[in-house]
Amino acid sequence: MSELRKDPITGRWVVFATEYRQALNTVPQAGTPAVNPCPFCPGHEAMTPPEITAQRSAGSASNDAKWKVRVIPNKYPVLRVEGALDPRGDGIYDRINGIGAHEIIIEGPDHLRDFDALSLEQAEMVLATLRDRFLDLKKDFRIQYVQAFKNFGEYAGANLGHPHIQLVGLPLVPKLVQEELDGVRRHQAHRGRCVFCDILHQDIRHPERLIAENEFFAALAPYAARSPFETWILPKQHQSDFLGLGKGEIRAWARLLRDILARCKRILKDPAYNWALHTAPFQATDAHLFHWHLEIFPRLARTTGFEWGTDFFFNPTLPEEAARFLREASV
Amino acid sequence: MSELRKDPITGRWVVFATEYRQALNTVPQAGTPAVNPCPFCPGHEAMTPPEITAQRSAGSASNDAKWKVRVIPNKYPVLRVEGALDPRGDGIYDRINGIGAHEIIIEGPDHLRDFDALSLEQAEMVLATLRDRFLDLKKDFRIQYVQAFKNFGEYAGANLGHPHIQLVGLPLVPKLVQEELDGVRRHQAHRGRCVFCDILHQDIRHPERLIAENEFFAALAPYAARSPFETWILPKQHQSDFLGLGKGEIRAWARLLRDILARCKRILKDPAYNWALHTAPFQATDAHLFHWHLEIFPRLARTTGFEWGTDFFFNPTLPEEAARFLREASV
Repeated sequence: MSELRKDPITGRWVVFATEYRQALNTVPQAGTPAVNPCPFCPGHEAMTPPEITAQRSAGSASNDAKWKVRVIPNKYPVLRVEGALDPRGDGIYDRINGIGAHEIIIEGPDHLRDFDALSLEQAEMVLATLRDRFLDLKKDFRIQYVQAFKNFGEYAGANLGHPHIQLVGLPLVPKLVQEELDGVRRHQAHRGRCVFCDILHQDIRHPERLIAENEFFAALAPYAARSPFETWILPKQHQSDFLGLGKGEIRAWARLLRDILARCKRILKDPAYNWALHTAPFQATDAHLFHWHLEIFPRLARTTGFEWGTDFFFNPTLPEEAARFLREASV
Repeated sequence: MSELRKDPITGRWVVFATEYRQALNTVPQAGTPAVNPCPFCPGHEAMTPPEITAQRSAGSASNDAKWKVRVIPNKYPVLRVEGALDPRGDGIYDRINGIGAHEIIIEGPDHLRDFDALSLEQAEMVLATLRDRFLDLKKDFRIQYVQAFKNFGEYAGANLGHPHIQLVGLPLVPKLVQEELDGVRRHQAHRGRCVFCDILHQDIRHPERLIAENEFFAALAPYAARSPFETWILPKQHQSDFLGLGKGEIRAWARLLRDILARCKRILKDPAYNWALHTAPFQATDAHLFHWHLEIFPRLARTTGFEWGTDFFFNPTLPEEAARFLREASV
């Protein structure tokens, strides 16, 4: 059984995912074409737990091979849906049993086609599915936050090469999201405005860090980027979460995400990358103050590991420089 | 010129070390024996900037080849000693010019001998040199914190295979150290005790996470370890910094650090690793409440990169399990 433990000094929570370890030893390596059968490829549906939901062609049935986007429980979940929350103390320590959710969204049937190469229709379907899973997981009162993220490439922590998104439903709010919420509250109290809206306002007017924008979204290299070519995609109008996005906004988001990934792949030579979605916690006071966004981290091989121990970041590339390269990339 | 920038949402500072990038392209690869001449090996002293200080055999002179421990400025510093602090605003953003210090302590003449394989006398000399550099850097009023760390192995961010420690003198306190200081203050206010002392008390009495100890120091796997085999070395008596350590304490620290690294190398097959020293900030209010310690992170290859984007950690290995393996390792 997994458990969550709290660091008694900083209050940081860690998920001890002892079952997840099995996955590290039993799945084919990430990378290019799968040598072993890939459990996410059509025809191998029986290799995964039964699907939670899927986008399918007319006339196809659950768990057959004719799907377009497929959502499954993670076979090696870091947290499990079954059971009640049972927070415990142990002397000065605090822990919670590993209750939550761990799902996978398979982005398409094609093992080798990453998000940037999907048709716009397929890309929209992926992001609409992501929104719908949040709407469903929000009904579970035990889940306070859903962390959506993608690991692509072995260097970014992917265990499987087939493009997929992971969702982890957590019984608490991750520290970084809590800090962002504290930050927006502080800025609101001091200046009466949303700090993300202020960033957008300044960076669109003086666009040296702006990479691309469309009707609804902007992509920019953040002023204090932690890593080279870190990119954020944000809605241009204040919006605390992405749960109410309509068809037009989903389409605009899909277009910009596809575009940014294509630019990264072009100029950074197909890097491993992570992205992480930051959205308002379901039950937080002041959740409406949050400004949701997606953070993309190309994982360039020579990134130093020093940050692990110190929470202090060296970045050899100024965001203005990264933005110029990405802006000028022809895709 | 490097600069430090503050994230306007969370307050996190990032060092933009644009000159440091040169180092990534101009030095030999990390790893086993250097093919290109190693600038840290004896006889190549002219390849580095002139030394700041060194431990030398009798009769040898500055910058000759007969040194035992050598301290040099980093050839590609992330921060520079010359100049005055010049904090500036730019709309909603804050930055400081890249003033500080960046030094290297070369741990010994032997390219292939890491700390665990040094003689006790040599290991003591390395840690005494580390203490002495802190005492010297503390005199510079612009420097609020010195981050000492080690990258060993390419996967841990090392650019050179020759064992060395880096010191970065910063004009501010890193966020993680600030959070630890906030944490010890909070615990002191609520319980009237040091949280690190409480941890030591509980984990030495119920030693399932204790790896080793001696007269002055304990090594333990922390309750909420962020990564497999993360290990902390702490003084058993409350001590806010390591600047006043005497000969006997330095010797005990050197012995335990050597021992822990040897155990890690044995059971984890010579992993890349980082360590980071956490000590009381020079000018902080309540600095005396801090409890200094060294955090060691073996960098196991399959660590997921997801943490980068979310500050949320998955750890597949319980600290009790890691501690048992390390305790039982014969060295």
